[in-house]
Amino acid sequence: MLVEIITIGDEIMIGQIVDTNSAWMAVELNKVGFEIAQITSVHDDAQHIINALNDAQTRADVILFTGGIGPTKDDITKQTLCKYFDTKLIYNEAVFQNIEKLLVNRQRAMNELTALQAKVPENCTVIQNLVGTAPITWFEKTGKVIVSMPGVPNEMKNAMSTEIIPRLQKRFKTPAIVHKTIIVKGYPESALALKIADWENNLPEYLHLAYLPTYGIIRLRISGSSENELALEFEINQQANQLSEILGDAIVAFEDIPLEVLVGKVLKNKKLTIATAESCTGGNIAHKITEVAGSSDYFKGSVVAYSNEIKQQVLHVPEDILAQQGAVSAETVEAMAVGARQLMRSDVAIATSGVAGPSGGTVEKPVGTVWIAVSTPHKTTSRMYQFGTNRIQNIERTTQNAFLFLLEKLQ
Amino acid sequence: MLVEIITIGDEIMIGQIVDTNSAWMAVELNKVGFEIAQITSVHDDAQHIINALNDAQTRADVILFTGGIGPTKDDITKQTLCKYFDTKLIYNEAVFQNIEKLLVNRQRAMNELTALQAKVPENCTVIQNLVGTAPITWFEKTGKVIVSMPGVPNEMKNAMSTEIIPRLQKRFKTPAIVHKTIIVKGYPESALALKIADWENNLPEYLHLAYLPTYGIIRLRISGSSENELALEFEINQQANQLSEILGDAIVAFEDIPLEVLVGKVLKNKKLTIATAESCTGGNIAHKITEVAGSSDYFKGSVVAYSNEIKQQVLHVPEDILAQQGAVSAETVEAMAVGARQLMRSDVAIATSGVAGPSGGTVEKPVGTVWIAVSTPHKTTSRMYQFGTNRIQNIERTTQNAFLFLLEKLQ
Repeated sequence: MLVEIITIGDEIMIGQIVDTNSAWMAVELNKVGFEIAQITSVHDDAQHIINALNDAQTRADVILFTGGIGPTKDDITKQTLCKYFDTKLIYNEAVFQNIEKLLVNRQRAMNELTALQAKVPENCTVIQNLVGTAPITWFEKTGKVIVSMPGVPNEMKNAMSTEIIPRLQKRFKTPAIVHKTIIVKGYPESALALKIADWENNLPEYLHLAYLPTYGIIRLRISGSSENELALEFEINQQANQLSEILGDAIVAFEDIPLEVLVGKVLKNKKLTIATAESCTGGNIAHKITEVAGSSDYFKGSVVAYSNEIKQQVLHVPEDILAQQGAVSAETVEAMAVGARQLMRSDVAIATSGVAGPSGGTVEKPVGTVWIAVSTPHKTTSRMYQFGTNRIQNIERTTQNAFLFLLEKLQ
Repeated sequence: MLVEIITIGDEIMIGQIVDTNSAWMAVELNKVGFEIAQITSVHDDAQHIINALNDAQTRADVILFTGGIGPTKDDITKQTLCKYFDTKLIYNEAVFQNIEKLLVNRQRAMNELTALQAKVPENCTVIQNLVGTAPITWFEKTGKVIVSMPGVPNEMKNAMSTEIIPRLQKRFKTPAIVHKTIIVKGYPESALALKIADWENNLPEYLHLAYLPTYGIIRLRISGSSENELALEFEINQQANQLSEILGDAIVAFEDIPLEVLVGKVLKNKKLTIATAESCTGGNIAHKITEVAGSSDYFKGSVVAYSNEIKQQVLHVPEDILAQQGAVSAETVEAMAVGARQLMRSDVAIATSGVAGPSGGTVEKPVGTVWIAVSTPHKTTSRMYQFGTNRIQNIERTTQNAFLFLLEKLQ
């Protein structure tokens, strides 16, 4: 069953916001057997919205709109759909009460604009938005389902999870879609493709392989769709096992999870706690670790030691090491890791120090030079990496490689 | 002049990656007077790519493809464009040499797949990709320009900045587009719309206003396009001044910059240094501050004190405060801020402590309860916030509100 996503909003078209909704929706819809036919972003413009809706119906059975239904003048999706479905806006008491309840909880007063949100198209199914003031509207026409929902991510997610997906599952019968992701480290994309070429060429016709490289790892995704979910899963797992024999230790995980989640799982299993001492990553490793719910079970804390002063006074990196080897060195980063482990009484620690850029590089240590250390009760080791010149990317690459380094040392 | 962006890749359609390229491209193209007609994401499928290309040409003069030109089997954009433009792939010596040079720099060997990247369509302009192995191809047909470039963000950005945008500017004459963003705090969207309704209704026809709410602030964007850039800029600035009279202190900035950049500017101007002590934000405030190039001028460091032990031992929060008031309290968060300022010898400090969720809440302190403190040499103050139940959002909201709180105290 094919679904098309249309995101509406001038702020997307001028690049002021990144459309993160579509990816989330695709993941959730895929899980229950709906495939995405196309994702289209259009302006807050009635004719553009209608054209996109007409085009989408030539490709898909379900069209999901997000955005363009706020209370302000620039949002015109509701009016446009009203015209398209040849109906009019009517006042809906249940929506009004829902808005009132929301506003009371937020200690805000109703105003004429929020009150207008209670006007909905007459010939549609109205679905309450329990976390925002704009209601969700569900239309059906000649076998197609068209839904308009808010663009605010948590409002969209709440509506999708609690209402839209369950209703779509009732309305349509879908085949099973199975994806399996294998995370591989240590290979450039083309070298990996050659390494597994024989295996890839022998994949059955109905399975599809995709490569997704990011920051030092490649995600290989095997996917297929079938009426027989169990047989499909069995076949895909068989293929993953064959891949495992070819790639061995280069495989980091057999599931599509962020490395920080994998790190958390391993630490929890081994009953180990962790701390970080971060210079060039500026707290990003701690931030990633603590984005994971339940991380307080194994994460003690972090010292972001941006200045040498903090490295010395808080993490006790010896002054002569900083003076002789410099902040970006094996000796400093190892002393930072040991210092963090002792200060925060954790079992293991990660430390980073490098030249994130865009300035600050020297001939000996150009921008992108990064040292990472991992300290365990048994041993402290460090490694040098040479990344590029982009600051944000260097921070992210260092973070991902720190997780890979730690996982290796924990094995 | 209208541009359409088509992003190609199954990984986008299953939501494995978020398309961040389009937003970046839109921003850069807007700056030089190109407007985005539509953004479309399609599968790695020849017919789908061709349909999207045909549709796009009915709306735009320039069609920019990203993605689908890697060395692996799943990428088919190059072959598809070859067929579409009725040409064939030929070996290109300059591309081969560029790939060779890149591989030498990366200490990698050429293999048959990377060598294949040197095969390009015969009747197109080939543009070298200086940071990756897939060349950029530029086609022209009946007045339309069609460009295919890599989907890897830094390769796309490099190609756009150094080649594609300069070439598009030579090829087409464009009107000036002016956007002005005003960042407003303290208003829900509908209340802001009412507050400025009279002003908004009196905007000249050729100016457009958009509302973009995120995490406690709303970005108001006034935009217009005109042959006369100076007059347009003058008019938009006039309108912004009127808005300033209506909104007063609620205006945080008259430019579209992230709050961490604004914080950096203010600290630099006032020659102040900063440190952070983070519990529920887990290092995200330090991470945001250090994403800004040059932040080492004013950022000293951070203690991520996730456990009470660290709050006590490293930040010297008194044991009895933690025991009596708890970690999520005015007293704790103020002691953390003072502790950070003293430990890291900074002029000011931000501290956070809260229940990020999804678990850990109590009746008295439900999930989403957050305390933020700002400490300056003159005074330490704190404030309580009540956010929602989503962990990632609570971390982001706390971070943004910490910046707003700090900016207020620095004024």
